[in-house]
Amino acid sequence: MNEKETATIGSAVIERLHQLGVRHIFGIPGDYVLSLYQLIERSPIRHIGTTREDSAGFAADAYARINGIGVVCVTYCVGGLNTVNAIACAYAERSPVVLLTGSPGLSERIKMPYMHHMVREFSTQRDVFERMTVAAVSLDDPITAEREMDRAFSALLRYRRPIYIEIPRDLVHTPLAAPLKPLCLNDEPSDSGALEEAITEVKAMLASSKRPAILAGAEIGRFGLQDHLARLVERLNVPIASTLLGKSIIREDHPLYVGVYGGLIARDEVQRFINDSDCLLILGSILSDMEGLDADSPLLSQGRTIHATADRVSIKHHRYDSIRFQDFVQALSAHPFPGFAARPLPPPLPVEDKPVAPKEQVSLRGLFRHLDSVLDAKTLIVADVGESLFAAADLHVHRRFEFLSPAYYTSMGFAVPAAVGASFADPNVRPIVLVGDGAFQMTGTELATAVRYGQVPIVIVLNNRGYSTEREILEGPFNDVHEWQYEKVCDLIGGGVGSRVRTQEEFERTLAAALADSGRLHVLNVLLDPADRSPGMVRLAHRLAKRLSTDRP
Amino acid sequence: MNEKETATIGSAVIERLHQLGVRHIFGIPGDYVLSLYQLIERSPIRHIGTTREDSAGFAADAYARINGIGVVCVTYCVGGLNTVNAIACAYAERSPVVLLTGSPGLSERIKMPYMHHMVREFSTQRDVFERMTVAAVSLDDPITAEREMDRAFSALLRYRRPIYIEIPRDLVHTPLAAPLKPLCLNDEPSDSGALEEAITEVKAMLASSKRPAILAGAEIGRFGLQDHLARLVERLNVPIASTLLGKSIIREDHPLYVGVYGGLIARDEVQRFINDSDCLLILGSILSDMEGLDADSPLLSQGRTIHATADRVSIKHHRYDSIRFQDFVQALSAHPFPGFAARPLPPPLPVEDKPVAPKEQVSLRGLFRHLDSVLDAKTLIVADVGESLFAAADLHVHRRFEFLSPAYYTSMGFAVPAAVGASFADPNVRPIVLVGDGAFQMTGTELATAVRYGQVPIVIVLNNRGYSTEREILEGPFNDVHEWQYEKVCDLIGGGVGSRVRTQEEFERTLAAALADSGRLHVLNVLLDPADRSPGMVRLAHRLAKRLSTDRP
Repeated sequence: MNEKETATIGSAVIERLHQLGVRHIFGIPGDYVLSLYQLIERSPIRHIGTTREDSAGFAADAYARINGIGVVCVTYCVGGLNTVNAIACAYAERSPVVLLTGSPGLSERIKMPYMHHMVREFSTQRDVFERMTVAAVSLDDPITAEREMDRAFSALLRYRRPIYIEIPRDLVHTPLAAPLKPLCLNDEPSDSGALEEAITEVKAMLASSKRPAILAGAEIGRFGLQDHLARLVERLNVPIASTLLGKSIIREDHPLYVGVYGGLIARDEVQRFINDSDCLLILGSILSDMEGLDADSPLLSQGRTIHATADRVSIKHHRYDSIRFQDFVQALSAHPFPGFAARPLPPPLPVEDKPVAPKEQVSLRGLFRHLDSVLDAKTLIVADVGESLFAAADLHVHRRFEFLSPAYYTSMGFAVPAAVGASFADPNVRPIVLVGDGAFQMTGTELATAVRYGQVPIVIVLNNRGYSTEREILEGPFNDVHEWQYEKVCDLIGGGVGSRVRTQEEFERTLAAALADSGRLHVLNVLLDPADRSPGMVRLAHRLAKRLSTDRP
Repeated sequence: MNEKETATIGSAVIERLHQLGVRHIFGIPGDYVLSLYQLIERSPIRHIGTTREDSAGFAADAYARINGIGVVCVTYCVGGLNTVNAIACAYAERSPVVLLTGSPGLSERIKMPYMHHMVREFSTQRDVFERMTVAAVSLDDPITAEREMDRAFSALLRYRRPIYIEIPRDLVHTPLAAPLKPLCLNDEPSDSGALEEAITEVKAMLASSKRPAILAGAEIGRFGLQDHLARLVERLNVPIASTLLGKSIIREDHPLYVGVYGGLIARDEVQRFINDSDCLLILGSILSDMEGLDADSPLLSQGRTIHATADRVSIKHHRYDSIRFQDFVQALSAHPFPGFAARPLPPPLPVEDKPVAPKEQVSLRGLFRHLDSVLDAKTLIVADVGESLFAAADLHVHRRFEFLSPAYYTSMGFAVPAAVGASFADPNVRPIVLVGDGAFQMTGTELATAVRYGQVPIVIVLNNRGYSTEREILEGPFNDVHEWQYEKVCDLIGGGVGSRVRTQEEFERTLAAALADSGRLHVLNVLLDPADRSPGMVRLAHRLAKRLSTDRP
């Protein structure tokens, strides 16, 4: 925006987004957002056209996880309501995504009770997103617009969760009542007395503890606290596990890292080790069946936990509502706690030395073992749901942002569009996408967007002709997936190199060729035995099936 | 279900669906609905696996429009929330779709505040769908389950709009408290006094009218009242227009049919003719910008309308809430109204005799003109949004269910999955799908489901490398669509015949070959000049742009 122009409601939002670090906006135009698109076009922010709105949502989510904020801009209802699942995923997994959207003009609404794209009320779209955002505002008044949008942005930064901003289309070019103020988002600071009291409590709990441990979750990453976490771990010299969603929050070759913890996916050894601690510091993870600590863990009932999230800090059986998550983690990392003596860690994943025959059909075991050996700091693993995720749980990851996955909400179809978003957020990494056949059929053609913008992900389609998680829980013909020639997607979208992979040798050769070819995207259609299962999947499916067994006829 | 078994909550729902005419259920399994899937598998209803949940929603919608009820069955949140836009479309366009879904077991919820796939509350999914269904129930009690589900089914039949039925996964196999009663859904009948009074009013209005006309909308089809409408038209001998959503409600070669009416799309001649009537009988259409009468039409303020929908019957400035739509239409069609003298109709669409050069690049004009000549009673046109719809507005359609399109809600990506649903609902018709390139990129790969189940639609991709509706309103690079080799989708999904079409001659030849080949699906990638526009699109875009012009900078 030209400095001399008065900001309009639309240009003020675009300017704030830019100030907050947004460089790309994902989405598809429509007549209720065309004026907004025009403003984006004139701004320093680049519009990235995806093929579907839900893909734009997943791309913005991945972008937000890496960049700190991401934006999807779509039209009213037919656009917005296609992003509900993606925004729900961002809400559930705490990713700071802005959903920017238009709506019928206020002047039109008076004359017309129904307009195209409208569902029931003019407010239906906003009503829906109120259920899955930390702020949902409609900027329909030039006097309050700035305050309202800043309130929404403050909530996004406070909770690192999605917000919803709607501008009626006849107000996009309406000037603000007063000049736009410089960026200054108010965030209620922590109560210093409460913070001091909490740290003192932690100190006392640690002092009387023999087997303390840390469990770190995704919010550490969302708030950019990875270095603070590493300092805390090293000062205390205590073992640390991560949740699956938090995988790669700490370098996995760190000597104190014991592996992924979580009810459905963890190895028994890690699970037992953490459950056996007498003081567990849970940082940035919710309590759920998939992620982090079970809500019915005895550690909680016995008052042996310190549990901090963006929502609150809980110690033993009481809680503090006036301490911000980042202040708590920073205070912990700055505090001169004494270090603990080293103690034995759970046995690492046994190094499996059974050879993989190069001419044999490629297997999950051979594939992941080889993949593990080629990962480096320039690789970003983006895992979809299914074997892609559950087998990947045992991968070793060597860099801050290398592992991206919807590990708690577990929505299929996340990975390909997420790789597109991630490549814009950090063009220096090359995504390796792990995606099942079922998930690829949902959003795999979003690779067209990678071709369009010259991105070069490597996509490994785990083709086992079925929904294998469901197959492992309860088999039936409904779990079958009609087979595609996945490598031919490159012909359809007009770019990239597709290959069929049958044996271990072919996999290793094709992956090497893909890694060596930095100018084109690659799609590997990996033909697996439908009965092949990773150890991670077997653990998960059996625990899920056990939970369901009581209601089986 | 075996007659001797006591019905469970799950089997009771499946049995009711079957009693109501459901023969196919569209969807994708997931761990919260696996028990339901098992019950479907054991029932006479066939499960149809789609590649995406939103496609399952559109397929169920099209199935419902033809069959009278359709069902989509998907898992909790990651499945259900992907269908929000499709269910919103069904709500807005009054299509009787059942969304059947699972949720976390009641016993699990006690122990675990968060479970995978969960967004915020256990009820978030239901809260969302309450905004776009006429009943949203969770069957969580064996004593009330039957009453609750029947209440929802009654609402679906009363309003022909979507309902939401959720079963917590640990209650699917819970026996009902009492044996399932035979199907007997209560629907409040019309108040006979009110109905008589309304018909008397209509009679008086018609008696003093010189230029009466009828405007018929989609609800005529939803309630299966096409024959009643035709009788009414012929008895009164008055001209009839249809809305775009109601297109094909009456045979378009009927001598009293004047064309499509509606604010954004109609030809001026039809618009003026209807606006000039002195008594307008609007049957089964809402008032909106896209569909039917403008809400600010002088016809309304002057008290010259009779307006009946599933919600209410309005005459002049008053309304009746106790008359059912179908009773009103049936009473109108049965009443011995005197007939009107014939009067001149608006001029038909001029027969355009400018020849189309066979060697020239294929154009919308040539394409639609030729298509018009090959349509017959065995063809079902399924039109997506954009030129597919707006150019198709001027097509002549010759059969009851021949035209299917999201003409009011106008959600792109509807047509391909809708063709899949329509082919199950009526295997005797062969869909011709008209779809733009932008829309094809959204859901075109759902053709894989057609291949899987041996369906043979003909898909005409109008490839003009952009979102042309938006392009016509406000041009910018954001309207560009990255070009695919659409005909190669057949190689990807492993079935069908793809062709590239450059000239009129090629189009006619390829379409003839496709029509002659009844054993395979066909995809025609029609290479249009990006600047090519149909008259319908020009009318619509210019009216939309005019509406926006006041807020353009």
